[in-house]
Amino acid sequence: MTKLKLRPVAIDTYKENVAYLHRGCTFYRSEGFQALSKIEIHKEEDGQPVIAVLNIVDDAGITAPGELGISEQVFAQLNLPPGTSVTVKHATPPASLDAVHDKISGEALDYEQYLKIAQDIVENRYSKIEIAAFLVGCAETGFERDEVLHLTRAMVETGDRLEWGETLVADKHCIGGIPGNRTTMLIVPIVAAHGMLMPKTSSRAITSPAGTADTMEVLANVDLLPDTLHAIVQRERGCLAWGGTARLAPVDDILIAVERPLSMDSPGQMVASILSKKVAAGSTRLLIDIPLGPTAKVRSHQGALRLRKLFEYVGDRIGLELEVVITDGSQPIGRGIGPVLETRDVMQVLERKPGAPMDLREKALQLAGRIIEFDADVRGGAGYHIARDILDSGRALAKMEAIIEAQGKKPNPPSLGRLHHVITAPGTGTVTAIDNLQMASIARLAGAPLDKGAGVDLHKKTGEHVEAGEPLYTIYAAFPADYEFALDAARQNSGYTLREAHE
Amino acid sequence: MTKLKLRPVAIDTYKENVAYLHRGCTFYRSEGFQALSKIEIHKEEDGQPVIAVLNIVDDAGITAPGELGISEQVFAQLNLPPGTSVTVKHATPPASLDAVHDKISGEALDYEQYLKIAQDIVENRYSKIEIAAFLVGCAETGFERDEVLHLTRAMVETGDRLEWGETLVADKHCIGGIPGNRTTMLIVPIVAAHGMLMPKTSSRAITSPAGTADTMEVLANVDLLPDTLHAIVQRERGCLAWGGTARLAPVDDILIAVERPLSMDSPGQMVASILSKKVAAGSTRLLIDIPLGPTAKVRSHQGALRLRKLFEYVGDRIGLELEVVITDGSQPIGRGIGPVLETRDVMQVLERKPGAPMDLREKALQLAGRIIEFDADVRGGAGYHIARDILDSGRALAKMEAIIEAQGKKPNPPSLGRLHHVITAPGTGTVTAIDNLQMASIARLAGAPLDKGAGVDLHKKTGEHVEAGEPLYTIYAAFPADYEFALDAARQNSGYTLREAHE
Repeated sequence: MTKLKLRPVAIDTYKENVAYLHRGCTFYRSEGFQALSKIEIHKEEDGQPVIAVLNIVDDAGITAPGELGISEQVFAQLNLPPGTSVTVKHATPPASLDAVHDKISGEALDYEQYLKIAQDIVENRYSKIEIAAFLVGCAETGFERDEVLHLTRAMVETGDRLEWGETLVADKHCIGGIPGNRTTMLIVPIVAAHGMLMPKTSSRAITSPAGTADTMEVLANVDLLPDTLHAIVQRERGCLAWGGTARLAPVDDILIAVERPLSMDSPGQMVASILSKKVAAGSTRLLIDIPLGPTAKVRSHQGALRLRKLFEYVGDRIGLELEVVITDGSQPIGRGIGPVLETRDVMQVLERKPGAPMDLREKALQLAGRIIEFDADVRGGAGYHIARDILDSGRALAKMEAIIEAQGKKPNPPSLGRLHHVITAPGTGTVTAIDNLQMASIARLAGAPLDKGAGVDLHKKTGEHVEAGEPLYTIYAAFPADYEFALDAARQNSGYTLREAHE
Repeated sequence: MTKLKLRPVAIDTYKENVAYLHRGCTFYRSEGFQALSKIEIHKEEDGQPVIAVLNIVDDAGITAPGELGISEQVFAQLNLPPGTSVTVKHATPPASLDAVHDKISGEALDYEQYLKIAQDIVENRYSKIEIAAFLVGCAETGFERDEVLHLTRAMVETGDRLEWGETLVADKHCIGGIPGNRTTMLIVPIVAAHGMLMPKTSSRAITSPAGTADTMEVLANVDLLPDTLHAIVQRERGCLAWGGTARLAPVDDILIAVERPLSMDSPGQMVASILSKKVAAGSTRLLIDIPLGPTAKVRSHQGALRLRKLFEYVGDRIGLELEVVITDGSQPIGRGIGPVLETRDVMQVLERKPGAPMDLREKALQLAGRIIEFDADVRGGAGYHIARDILDSGRALAKMEAIIEAQGKKPNPPSLGRLHHVITAPGTGTVTAIDNLQMASIARLAGAPLDKGAGVDLHKKTGEHVEAGEPLYTIYAAFPADYEFALDAARQNSGYTLREAHE
């Protein structure tokens, strides 16, 4: 048994465990390791080992012979002081890789196989390339809907689950891709004011310029301990919290870390990802929003229908009653893109300000109405009117203020970026299209969501008339470098299409 | 444009470029990078950038804010002194990834698409996970034989090509998996003595206990500059060199670095890998050896035939006339496993020693005979006798000695490992099977091929009678740790199956 002394190496290798071994180490020589080999690190003789991929080091200042360098991820998992002697050996490939090979050869896997794969993934026994192999094996071709169901169940099973003690726990989810689409921050106060339980846990933005958690964070604390979360939900019937504190379907987070750089988003993975998180969050009724449009994630009606059926198939079998609505995804919703700007839009709607963005208000009322109709006592079709009454009477605003107070109001909310620039219309005419992807990209380059005050504020939407030189939108940024990146991008492609007016 | 100062980080990340950025670096903050993001590193404004995957560092001792840490691979590619200012930016995904996504969705790709993929891979624009996605996309299901041809061509096109100035350039290749199968070191001197050109370039062992290059290196220098290689081949008609000095189908090496840890070896990838290397090495006629047996790579006759047809299909279309022989892969060939032991077997056959391993001699003569029949002047069926005459007359030995002298004879050849242990028969009976995989594994654990004198020497082969306590094989090792690993493995599973004799 080879013993090596642990040495933390302050490198963040994200969702992959990496260990560092000096090229001169006898263990390296004798075992004939290659880079990308995997090792098992044992704390005790009998315990469960931690698995890591090996990088070879030629600088004793990073890892010396006799030492085992470990990345931050491994250090956290081992939870042992530097210098501790650990036993290392060649890792045998995780047993569930056989099932991955079966999947790659075109076979359908059963629940037991997906469960074993999920267990090995959550225990960090898979390297990034093994995860990539699994994801590609499960890509569209030959990934049957029963397998989507098995994978969803396996991802729920290998994480924690929130319990709310009620039979109707409402939730909503948008598949994403539409900037400014901050309906959740309106729907939760409306639905909770109606009395229906809606303990909303959201993610932070990953590839978009703002997630619900990033945006809510402008107003209130979103990073809540489980007990606090339960107390708030019990009193207010709703919350707008970040879901990252609980271990909900952790396999999904690991898969996403590889899916993203691969730009993979097969319908099967999307459905398994969304539904496993919802079941783990304790939701029982779910409204899913699929925006449809030429620059949205789903671009054909047929594609939207196929996705809807897959959601329904899996939802029905996993104990999640869900409804799917296909919405207009032809342009951004509301005006602001970026946390501070989106908060402004949401508060304008709640406060019934004269200039509040009507499209955001209408979409939120439609969706909130559908959720309120989950209530058996509400007559089909009556939900919209109930939602509108709650909003227009100021009860939604009061509920939002109560939730903000309960979660912990931010004493000094961030303000808009001090650098700003107006992009103007190159000619006179009508706005015929706004590119969701380009607007999201400009807002991200400007610094959103890390800089909450960065983003884009739209002054014109599709169908509106503009005069040459009239403002189309304003870019906000906090840092000069971001500001320049965003301006460059906007100058290359403004994201707006105009149909010029004829003389 | 962000400028950062280069800082080498002495970490070997194998075939993947990795760059290290301090978490506090403004560039990291402003661009909102995630780990696994890719960046472009530009030497000059207009030059071709080097692409690297990003790891985030929390220790300024490795990489400080304002610096760009680069792994050994990146340092070699950039070829700039430490401290040089370089421009970095977010890398756009390589354009050919679109084709990979098409492949994953089940589409067949054309030559142009494979060429673009190969170009991006050879320029290190693909991360490991992107390569894994490509490989899985090209796994057995839906990888058409025309696509194997396209990929083979693309891999040849993106590397260098040796030219020998003759129309008949002979080569042989075994798909591997059989320990001790060192026929090449007999075939080359026989064929070259016949006068046929056989400039053999071989690989080092990757997962096996010895490759032809590792074994030949016991006797002679194998690491030859292109000019030296050409001069030797011109004079001797043959050589036994390592192929790694030339840039032959370099994409293949990058793909193998990911295939291996994934344990992927689809027939399509195998054929493309072997044939691209051969075409790049300038071969025009090729004999392929497919060993068939229960512990060989190919385990069914049907599987061997399918593989043969794929080799023929691609070979015919890429200008490589090839013949495939299916040979007995039921047990190791010869007696020694490991570089020094295999050299001993080869030299015993060449020197016509009384105890020389007959199976190795016979197999080499059969294969050499088939290659000699590539000669238009040799009557079909006469090759074996010609080969035998060359061997038995001592002309093969003389040719081998001439090749060794030409390549540079080793003054002090390595000797057998000083640690040795005899594994004995647990009972009396007949050897009915020897497990190729287990024998290879024991020899590797003993230190082969890194320690040339390590390995396994078989005293009994299939069909032989043994008495209880009689030696089955001897394990040789140089280092105590290796010795123990190999003995442990042999005690757990000797690799031998005996049918006990009845009283």
